[in-house]
Order: sequence, then C-alpha cells, then structure tokens
Amino acid sequence: MRIGVIGAGSCGKEIEAAAESIGRWIGEKGHVLVCGGLGGVMEAAARGAKSGGGVTLGILPGCDAREANPYIDYPIVTGMSHARNAVIAWTSDLLVAVSGEYGTLSEMALGLKMGRSVIAYRSRWKGMEGVVDVETLEEALEAMEKFSD
Amino acid sequence: MRIGVIGAGSCGKEIEAAAESIGRWIGEKGHVLVCGGLGGVMEAAARGAKSGGGVTLGILPGCDAREANPYIDYPIVTGMSHARNAVIAWTSDLLVAVSGEYGTLSEMALGLKMGRSVIAYRSRWKGMEGVVDVETLEEALEAMEKFSD
Amino acid sequence: MRIGVIGAGSCGKEIEAAAESIGRWIGEKGHVLVCGGLGGVMEAAARGAKSGGGVTLGILPGCDAREANPYIDYPIVTGMSHARNAVIAWTSDLLVAVSGEYGTLSEMALGLKMGRSVIAYRSRWKGMEGVVDVETLEEALEAMEKFSD
Amino acid sequence: MRIGVIGAGSCGKEIEAAAESIGRWIGEKGHVLVCGGLGGVMEAAARGAKSGGGVTLGILPGCDAREANPYIDYPIVTGMSHARNAVIAWTSDLLVAVSGEYGTLSEMALGLKMGRSVIAYRSRWKGMEGVVDVETLEEALEAMEKFSD
Repeated sequence: MRIGVIGAGSCGKEIEAAAESIGRWIGEKGHVLVCGGLGGVMEAAARGAKSGGGVTLGILPGCDAREANPYIDYPIVTGMSHARNAVIAWTSDLLVAVSGEYGTLSEMALGLKMGRSVIAYRSRWKGMEGVVDVETLEEALEAMEKFSD
Repeated sequence: MRIGVIGAGSCGKEIEAAAESIGRWIGEKGHVLVCGGLGGVMEAAARGAKSGGGVTLGILPGCDAREANPYIDYPIVTGMSHARNAVIAWTSDLLVAVSGEYGTLSEMALGLKMGRSVIAYRSRWKGMEGVVDVETLEEALEAMEKFSD
Repeated sequence: MRIGVIGAGSCGKEIEAAAESIGRWIGEKGHVLVCGGLGGVMEAAARGAKSGGGVTLGILPGCDAREANPYIDYPIVTGMSHARNAVIAWTSDLLVAVSGEYGTLSEMALGLKMGRSVIAYRSRWKGMEGVVDVETLEEALEAMEKFSD
Repeated sequence: MRIGVIGAGSCGKEIEAAAESIGRWIGEKGHVLVCGGLGGVMEAAARGAKSGGGVTLGILPGCDAREANPYIDYPIVTGMSHARNAVIAWTSDLLVAVSGEYGTLSEMALGLKMGRSVIAYRSRWKGMEGVVDVETLEEALEAMEKFSD
C-alpha cells in the first residue's frame, strides 16, 4: 500500500515527532511512504519510514532531484510546482495529514475528490466531511491500521 | 484583472443564479473570467460574463476542447485532470468560490498557498483563515469590488 | 480555430520576421494565436497577431503572469515548466513550428502524438513523418490556409 | 543513478528483446529504472530490470495505479496524460530511447532541453544533435556504461 504523509515544509518539534512515528509505522508495516520530498513533516516522515525499514518516494515540486531530503529513496522530479500535489494524491492509496497549512489542505481536498481516505492529525480544519480527525498518535496509528487492512 | 470563479460541476438553481450574477459583474467591469470550463457553477459564471460583455477562459481538465461549455471564448485544454486546478489558481488574480465541494476547496487552498485573495460565497468551509466569507450576493460583489480596485 | 505558433525564446531577425508574418495572418483570418507567451518567436508571433487584429493566448511555464510578452492578451499561468508544452499542443488545433530547438521539437512531437496537424517552417528536423515542411513564408501561409479550411 | 527507458507502448519481438536486455543491465548495475509504466518497451525494460535485481518506477499517464505493468515496483500516478513525459525526463539522469514513435521523440526532446544525456537505439530520427545513436545492443550498453560512470 502507498501511504501519503502530507504536511508543512517546516514544523515544530511535536509535529515532527508525530510525523516521524507515523513514518516509522509505515516502514515497519511494509507500506511505501509517499510524500512531497522536502523538509519539515515530509522529511520527518521519510526519516521515520527509513528507520522502520521502509521505502520512500518523494514527489518534488522543482526541477532538481537534489532538493529531496536525505531520506528519500526515489525522488520523482515533476518540475510543476504546486500541481505536483495532485500527483501525491493520485499516487497515494491513503493520505495522512500531519497538521499542515494551505498546501496540505489542497492535498486533502484533492485526495477526497479522488476518493482517497484521509486521516488528519491535529488538523487546523477540523470536522471536514470525509476526513477522520485524530488528536493523538495512538488514534492516528489505529486509523491507519484500519484503513490499510 | 483575471478573476477565477470556482465551484461544482453541477449545482442547484440558487447557486447557479449567484454564479451567473457574479460572472455578469465580472464581464460588466471589464475583467476576464477564468473558470474550469465545464458545467454547473463554471457554466453559469461564464454565461453571466458573456451577458455582461466580458471574455471567458475555460481551463479544461480533459483532452478535448469540445468539453467546454458554450459560453467559453477560449478553451485551454490541459489534459491533466485535477492538476489543472493549480493552473486555475495561478492564472487568477482573485478567486471567488461559489459554494462548491472538494475540487473547489482544493482550488481555494492552492490559491491561498499562492498568495491569491479568496472570496467564498456560501462556503461549506466557513471561517478558513485568509478567506473572506460572504452569504449574500451583495456582499460578494462588494468584496470583489474591493479586491479588484 | 486555435493555431499554435511554436519556436525558440530567442531568434534571429529573419525568423522573427517570419513568425510575425505568420502571426499577422492568424490575426487577420480571425483565428486565435496560441503560444508559450515568452520572447523570440512567441513574442514575434503575438505581435503579428495583434497587428492583424487577432487574439493571443500565452501559455506560460512559470508562476507569474508578468513573464508574458506585451502582446499576450490572455496569459495562462501554468507553473509547470516544460510540461506546459503539452498544454500548448492540446490547446492548438494546428501547430506551426518556426525554426526552433528542442523545446519546439517536443511540442511538435506531442502535437503529432495527439493527432494535430504540424507545419514546420525551416525546421532543423526535416522530413519527419507527419510534418509538412516548408521553406518560404508563402508556402507556410498556403499550408496554414489549407489546414484551417 | 536513475535511467529512463522510453519507447512505444507496443512493439515487435526484436525491440522488446533489446528493451529487456537494456533493463536487465540497469538492474544488474544497481541503477533505478524509470519508465512510463505501461506496455511494450516500458514493460520489457521493467521486466528486464526486475530480472537483473533492480528497482522500477512507472510514471503513469492515467489516474489508476492498476494500469502499471506487472514489473513496476512503484507506480507514480500522474493523471496528466502526455504531460507526464516531462516528469519522466526530469526524473531520469540519462534517457535511453528504444526505437519509439512520437511520444518517445517528445521525451527525447524534453530530455535534451533539460540537459539530459540521450542514447537512441534504432531511432527513426537519426542524427539528432545531442543524441548518441546506436544500432546494436552492444553499442547501447557501452554508451550507457560510459554515461553512468
């Protein structure tokens, strides 16, 4: 299963730790991590996935594979800026938003439009129809477990 | 000024009437209407813009210009499905959401990410930071007037 | 009819003059000029189309409408770098390459793949199957006349 | 190194065998195979890469991961039709065209525009500036060896 972890390119320690744990779970379970390939939540999730023994795809907005964070196994260089958010959503079977801002919201919305399941950890946009809101890491992993069955 | 009117591909009479009035205002003021080129809110806004003497651009998701509604002067055929939402947001100086669902939400979020002003008429996602929520047509036109000064 | 004029972003005087004449023909005949919106052949063709009384669409690679040349009526801001070449090809009913380099060749090839007619004026890649090669402006306009009937 | 193998979605036995051998070399050398994920040359190259112990990325044009051939480890679902050719070219450090038609030509041209090295095995477009033309499998592998040093 390909699980997309989406979130901001820079984030605080708590969100970073959550993203890393979510990534580790993905790696340990043998799923593939899909992310935007840059810093913040994307980097923490990829680091986690690698520490869990998983594989990481980074779908980059720019034109240079070197913009990928060091935990990306396979950079996908799109050169298409924010339009790459649609590629992240199409490629993921399940999306997990870790906090996040407008870019993340666009990915959640695109994912919902495409029929993807979306879990949101500590979302700024609580109560969106079709999104499973969670507040703790335990709830997040539980929801991921359920959707990846 | 290029003003994007975004909303669902099918909609009720009331939303359709609002989209048409908003489009007419855009045409009468000499702005260019940008939309997704299909039915529902997109078609109503384009019909309004034409009745107001304006010009309409339809940024289509598919591979065939003939999917454009009959009020589109210039179809832009992207062939890139929902990723074309990013092109709508980049191309518009101002975005006006007319009700709308997940696709619309993705365009609002992309627009906010790109620094666009966003007005939302009868949004399902009220209170989003950075969005001017309006409930009546008068408020919508007033907000458009203000942002297009 | 939407006619795409494709070619390099910088070019010599002779090619520039040809692009301008081809653009003028498009404008005078009431067709819509589609181009990449930047300099060189794109700017010359757009200038010609405006002098012929036509309408011009510029499908831009970057994220800023201000990168359009001054003869573009409607900039389409894609933010997707060379992938916008596919949008130019999809949007055009007919493609006219004016000399050009690799970017132009990619647009010719995409156009052929999409079933578009392609005319090439003084092409570096003569004899490509499916392409009408022309060497003089008269031949170019004659071929355009034929394909836009 | 990420090596893109590009070619038609259906092909004869001889071309298929060459694509498979080229893919096998990529896998054996520990490089990553990038391709368009569909049939013909793309499938043969991916099958070869897997038989050589390698990893395969399939950058798909459609909206469904299931359109990937069975030898793709990681499908990237772009939903953007031929515009995905630009993603293949951006993502590959080196491109190897195996015969091919207009789609392949567009990828060669995009790759050249982006500064990629391009090797063409039995190309229909011989003698293109910037392309290393080869006629035998041995020459192809030799050129790949040279460029991937």
